[in-house]
Formats: sequence, C-alpha cells, structure tokens
Amino acid sequence: MNAPVSHLQPEIHARAVPSALLEALKARFGAQFSAAQAVRDQHGRDESAFTVPPPQAVVFAQSTQDVSDAVKLAARYKVPVIPFGVGSSLEGHLLAVQGGISLDVSRMNQVLSIDAEDLTVTLQPGVTRTALNAAVKSTGLFFPIDPGADASLGGMAATRASGTNAVRYGTMRENVLALEVVTASGEVIRTGTRAKKSAAGYDLTRLLVGSEGTLGIITQLAVKLYPLPEAVMAATVSFDNLADAVGTTMAIIQMGVPIARCELLDATTVRIVNTYAKLSLPEAALLLMEFHGSPAGVQEQVETVQAIAAEQHGHAFAWASTPEERTRLWTARHNAYFAGLQSRPGCRAITTDACVPISRLADAVLASVDEARASGIPYFMVGHVGDGNFHMGYLIDPDKPAERDAAEALNHQLVARALALGGTCTGEHGVGLHKMGFLLDETGAGAVAMMRAIKQALDPDNILNPGKIFAIE
Amino acid sequence: MNAPVSHLQPEIHARAVPSALLEALKARFGAQFSAAQAVRDQHGRDESAFTVPPPQAVVFAQSTQDVSDAVKLAARYKVPVIPFGVGSSLEGHLLAVQGGISLDVSRMNQVLSIDAEDLTVTLQPGVTRTALNAAVKSTGLFFPIDPGADASLGGMAATRASGTNAVRYGTMRENVLALEVVTASGEVIRTGTRAKKSAAGYDLTRLLVGSEGTLGIITQLAVKLYPLPEAVMAATVSFDNLADAVGTTMAIIQMGVPIARCELLDATTVRIVNTYAKLSLPEAALLLMEFHGSPAGVQEQVETVQAIAAEQHGHAFAWASTPEERTRLWTARHNAYFAGLQSRPGCRAITTDACVPISRLADAVLASVDEARASGIPYFMVGHVGDGNFHMGYLIDPDKPAERDAAEALNHQLVARALALGGTCTGEHGVGLHKMGFLLDETGAGAVAMMRAIKQALDPDNILNPGKIFAIE
Repeated sequence: MNAPVSHLQPEIHARAVPSALLEALKARFGAQFSAAQAVRDQHGRDESAFTVPPPQAVVFAQSTQDVSDAVKLAARYKVPVIPFGVGSSLEGHLLAVQGGISLDVSRMNQVLSIDAEDLTVTLQPGVTRTALNAAVKSTGLFFPIDPGADASLGGMAATRASGTNAVRYGTMRENVLALEVVTASGEVIRTGTRAKKSAAGYDLTRLLVGSEGTLGIITQLAVKLYPLPEAVMAATVSFDNLADAVGTTMAIIQMGVPIARCELLDATTVRIVNTYAKLSLPEAALLLMEFHGSPAGVQEQVETVQAIAAEQHGHAFAWASTPEERTRLWTARHNAYFAGLQSRPGCRAITTDACVPISRLADAVLASVDEARASGIPYFMVGHVGDGNFHMGYLIDPDKPAERDAAEALNHQLVARALALGGTCTGEHGVGLHKMGFLLDETGAGAVAMMRAIKQALDPDNILNPGKIFAIE
Repeated sequence: MNAPVSHLQPEIHARAVPSALLEALKARFGAQFSAAQAVRDQHGRDESAFTVPPPQAVVFAQSTQDVSDAVKLAARYKVPVIPFGVGSSLEGHLLAVQGGISLDVSRMNQVLSIDAEDLTVTLQPGVTRTALNAAVKSTGLFFPIDPGADASLGGMAATRASGTNAVRYGTMRENVLALEVVTASGEVIRTGTRAKKSAAGYDLTRLLVGSEGTLGIITQLAVKLYPLPEAVMAATVSFDNLADAVGTTMAIIQMGVPIARCELLDATTVRIVNTYAKLSLPEAALLLMEFHGSPAGVQEQVETVQAIAAEQHGHAFAWASTPEERTRLWTARHNAYFAGLQSRPGCRAITTDACVPISRLADAVLASVDEARASGIPYFMVGHVGDGNFHMGYLIDPDKPAERDAAEALNHQLVARALALGGTCTGEHGVGLHKMGFLLDETGAGAVAMMRAIKQALDPDNILNPGKIFAIE
C-alpha cells in the first residue's frame, strides 16, 4: 500500500492551448464552439470533490465527423481532448488537469437502430439511460444498466458502469457489443459486431469499455437489450443487525437465486433516504430486492429469499408489486447519493467503490461502517451487495482540511482491506484522478506498465483525457 | 472482401533458432526439454488442415517460473515461443510458422483453490475442462464452457472459447475473472481480481482472453463456477424442414427463454452422428436442447419451447431426464466433429465458425447448407444456434487440390454472407492462421492497425506466437 495522501488536490499541469487552435476550432465549429466562462466552468466540474481549473474551450459535437475533426485539430497542436457526456463522474474523469478542450457529445443523442428481434440497439453516446429506456419501451425490451445518475451511454461505457441490476444482467463490460470510436489521430474505427459472441482477434471493445476516454472517444455503441420480465416483484426486509443483512445477501448469491437487484442500506442511510424521499422505511439495516421472471419463478425466488432472511432475523417484510410502489422505492435508492449530500448542507461526498468476492462481503462492509461511525464524520452507505460492491460516502465540509484528511484515511483503510480480501478498489466508478494509487496497489506495477504501454502506443502525444488512470512520465 | 485464396498453405518464415538457445534451454530444463523429432512433431500439428514444419524444440513447463525462464531465454535470442495445451486448435494456433520453441503447459495442471462460497476456482492453464469439472464436482458447482475437445483452460482462454452452454452461461470472455500472465519479456503480471466486477483501469483480462498467445502466456486463471441446477431436462425435436428448426431457435431466443443449450444438426449430420455414436435419432433436422432451473422453472421452459416447436412443425419430441440419457446425447453432439472426420476416412475438415445476430440466422444457415449440398463436397453442419453461431465442416481429401479450393470457396462465401448480415467470421475458434483475411474484412484496417499497435507495444520483437491473427510487417 502506498502511504495515505490526500487526493483532493490533484496535480495540475495545464498545457498551453495555442490561440491558433482556438481560432481553427471556432472556424470549423461556429456556434458549436464556446470559450465562454460559464460554459467552460460547467464542463470543468463533476460530482467528485475536486476543484480544478476548467478546460480552455468546449466543442459541442453533433456527429462522428465533428468528433474526428475536433480531435484532428487538437492532435495537430498536441492539446488534450476530454470527452463530456452529462458530467456525472464521481472520480474527476472529465476534469482538465492538463488543460485542453472539452468535447461535449450530449447532442449526439440519437437512437439509431432498435433491432428488437436481435435484442440489440445501436445509439449515439449522448443518449442517457432513461432516454434509451423510453425509446425502446414500446418493443417490450429494456436496458438494465442503471448507475445512480441519468448518465450517458458513452460515459457509462467509458467508465464500465453498472448499478442495481448488474447482479443479474451484468455491467457495461457484458452489455456493449460493438463500438465506433475516434482514435487519437482522429481516425474512425469500428470494433465488434452485433453478433452475441466473437473470437475475432483482440477484444478492442472491452479494452475501450472502461478506458475512461484515454484510448478513444466513443461515437457509437451497440448494446444488448432484454425482454421485460413477465413478472416483477420488489421486496424490502429489515434487520436489527447489519451483519444479518450482509449474511442474507451472501446466502442468496451462494444458493444461486437469480435475483435481479439486491441492495443494502445501513440504518443511518435509511434515515437519510426517508427524510429526502418522504418515506417511512423502518430505520434499521435494509435489503431492497427485486425479482424478475415468470410468475411462478418469481414466487419461488421470493419464497427462497424469505426463508433465508427469516433465518437471519429479518423482519418487516414488505412487498411492492405495483409499478408505482416499485418506482418509488427504486427512485429513493437511486437518490441516496443526493439524499446524502442534502443531509449535510454545503458538504461534498468522498465516495468509495470497493467490490470483493461475495464470501468476504461481511468482513469488508462491517469494518468499514464501524470505522466510519467511530470517526464521527457523517456518512452514508449503500451497496450493490449482490455483486460484493458497496459505497461509503463521507460527507465532508470542503473548507475543513481535517475532515478531508480523515475521510481520505477512512477511504484508504477501506480500500486496503478490500484488496487484502481479494477485491478491487472500484467496482463501477472507475479510477479517474482519485484511485491511481489504489490501482497500482491492486494490480501491481507490471499490469499498470502494460496499460501505460498500450496508452503510449495508441496515443503517443497523450492527448486523450490525459492524467487519468495512471501517470505518464 | 479480399479475393478468395487458399489458406491451406500458410507462408512459412522460420527464424533461425541458435544452438546456444537450445543449449541454454537444455541446461535450464533438463528432462523437461526435448528436441526429439516425435515430440516436436506432436507439438507441430493440431486439428486444423495445415501442414507446417514443427517447432525446433519443446519445453515442458511445470511452473510459472519455468514459463518465465523459458520466455526470457527465447527473448534473448528473439526466438518465437508458442504455448501448447492439448493441441485441439482448429485454426493452426500452435503451428510454428515462424519456427521457434513450443512451450507445453499441460503439466501445469493443478487446481489451486476452489472457493465454493465465491463461485470461483483458481487453476493452472493445463487443467482440462473435464478435469476441472471432476475437481469441483463435490462442491455442487460446475464450469459450463465446453468446446468439443477436452481442451485446456489456458487454451480456451487464449482463443475465447465457448461451446454448447454459452447461450446461457456466456463464453470465456464472461467467465474469466483474473489471470496471471508471463509477458514477452518474461515478467509475471496479474490482471483482475476474484471480485465479480471491476472498473479498475484497462480490462487487461479481456484483452488477453482471445489474444491467442500473442500478448502473453497464461500461467494461472480464476474462473467462475455455477451451482449445478436443481433440475435438468434435455430434449430433442425433429423437423422435416431445416428452416423450421432455425425458426424455432430464433423464437426461443427472442422470447427470452433462459435455455441452457440449443444445438442444431442438419439431417446429413444426424446421419453421421447416428453411425458414429450408434444412436437412432430420426434422420431429419434436429434441435438438441437442455433446460436448467428449478423443477417448476424447467417445466415452464419446456412447455414454452414445445409450443413454439409445434407451431413450426416440430415432431418426434423426446425427453431425456436421466443423467445417463443426457450424457449419451451430449457426448454424441460433442463428437460430431470426429464423427464427421470418420464418415470419410482419410479426410481433413475445413471448419467454419460464423456467428450472426439471431434474426439473421436463417439467412446465414440455410444458404450455407444449400451451397455445401450443391458443391458435392461431403460436409457436416452443427450449430450453437441459440447464440447465432454455426459450424460447417467441409470434409476434403487432402490430396485433391480441387476439393481444397472448392471448400475454401464455400468458406469464403459463407463468411462474406455472415459479415454482410452483421456477424463475425469466428464465434469461438479464433483467427489463427486461417481467418486473417476475414478479420480484416470484418473489422476494417483501422481496428486491425490498433491490434497491431498493441502487439508491437507489448511484444516488440514479435516472439509470442508470431504470425497469428494479423501479419506484422
């Protein structure tokens, strides 16, 4: 483990952006180009707790050709290009730590082809997850990946996002079939096909998924869709003891129950969510679950899970079978992050994202919650626990350096423990600026050197979202 | 599309293997080193139809350290190193087209850690799929990936293999969690963790899975296991018309039935399999299916599929619910390749491996079978059709160039059609020597250039299984 350091002050090495580049971009893009301070500021912050000077200018791409032309111009001057979707990164992915141009793809928001018979859809990167589901609704299909924010599909692919449905449907890793990508030289390439599987050479699709904009800019994606389940049932169950809630989760997964969602909130977080969402959930550790299948299949799953939970002293079972009840519960869950922020006005959240093998979940979660409580720093805790993934949000006063340092120390302890348990420092948020040291601890210098060699081969001038994932000397 | 060329005569550019290297390997490895002709010959052929001079020598690695030391010695002399598992490649992956040393990992056959509570197992690359399943049997878990041969897990990972269970359980792409790999410099690196998901930097695991030994030599894998289903039912149903069998498959997938296996044999192939396996299946197009789940869930699936098949004129439904009956059926299916070879004594098989989006399956399969019939070349046809993947095996007399050319022309037509339908030239066998031109057609020069740039960055002297997937100038 590296020595704990505050990651809240990333090093800034802004490269010069020649006025000739700004002029050339303005000439090429006209009203799609802006150097206005407000626009730059809006593209220079995300949901992380970092404060970094904004990019020098913003280009609003409307086509693959726009992206290619912008990258080619930037490449000529060796100026960084940072793709921007909706700005919901938690890890500083879109911050201009080396200066440069923000390339906003949010206007590339067309669903290009819904191939319902193949259970696939092809779309532009600026489409958000809720817009995608609205577009495919009439087909009886849905797209399951649901990070808390209404993120863009391009950003979700770039950070290998997942969410509450991943325990059953997988993450962006499993659900992206094919990509169109603009490389560091501005060339347009295609990876993958809409076929369900392939052994055709290096898996560039999965290399680009999770590469955080550092190897290419995604301009088109083909992703999987799933039939809307015939029957859906959501359930909540409470536990006086957090350990019992975690134990129930572990048993559900180990028994192979094909649960669609399995989320944990500790008692503190339930209280925060109740206040924010005007709910009256019992203020105890809570498992929030969903079951998909045929009516008989859902019934079987529910009975199995109810028996497991009862053995672990679960109580206050509640079933939500109407879409309205379910939506209310899941909206509350998705808003836990914002509920946390609002529970301490003016705070920023430092979020963790560890994921461990399921048998180690209790060790990882219980100690982390105990440490947070002992620290006195306000926090929330939510978990995609069916995957072994959980988040602590340390709610710090950004003006109090002691709180930042304490939160970073908690974060460091939590990650060190997760790695010792055979886990990863990030299940779904990505590395960005915040977890570079953790990545090195997790995977070792050899693997990071391999990543760096790939980056240098594909982006020799280091213009694609530089300064993220690892340092380039 | 490139002009059709016979791929049966790969270009041979054997590099010199200095006697100093052979001496050094002999000194280091003693009885684990062999330059005997019979051993070299055994490591110089696979299940492809290629004939290539064998490697200069064979090293039998027994540990990661052995692999690392062998690669370091070879790297010093810039001599190719070709990993070897059981030799079941269909695409010439292990042929020494540039000369060099075969690195046999079949003695690295230890199952290192069965983590039943996490549904994972960690093992060495020489463990075969049947040995793995024997090792985990007492845990109530199983490993689903089943290529026709009893392949090694290392080889399966290197070629991104799948098989009959992939429609439900995914391929090696979805089932490898972590790797230990020896790089081109002999360094040992680790990728991934046993956590179910991760967003920690570039997905090196999935870059290495399917890289066919060209980026690193796999020395350890962690893979997923699954609970043995509570209930299993296999079923066969026959169709007078191949189109109806394909239509039934498409409907099963599009309705979201969680079928565990869905295999197609045409009437010709059923005849071949009956002869080889002493079965008496009706000599008509056959769907061979398996259902996994709870007893009620399996019953639901079976009823749905039976209704779909009946609508498409399926007949001669037969159910195999005992393990013995199921094993007999699936063994017959797995032996279809060998049944095909035996149906024409002395022949070699040129196999295709296209995979298309499921809605295009009928277009792809029916035309391919018609063309094979019209050609007069004996063939067999089997398909993992639930995935849109199917294989033709053209059974040629290796001494008749006209048959080779005719088979290659059929192959070329079949792949061109699959690509035009949005599919891939290889669903599970890999590119190897045979499909380099097809890969270029499929993914375009830009993506192949990206693969080549990665290869050159990670293996600048091109010593790891050179001459496969793409040409290096």
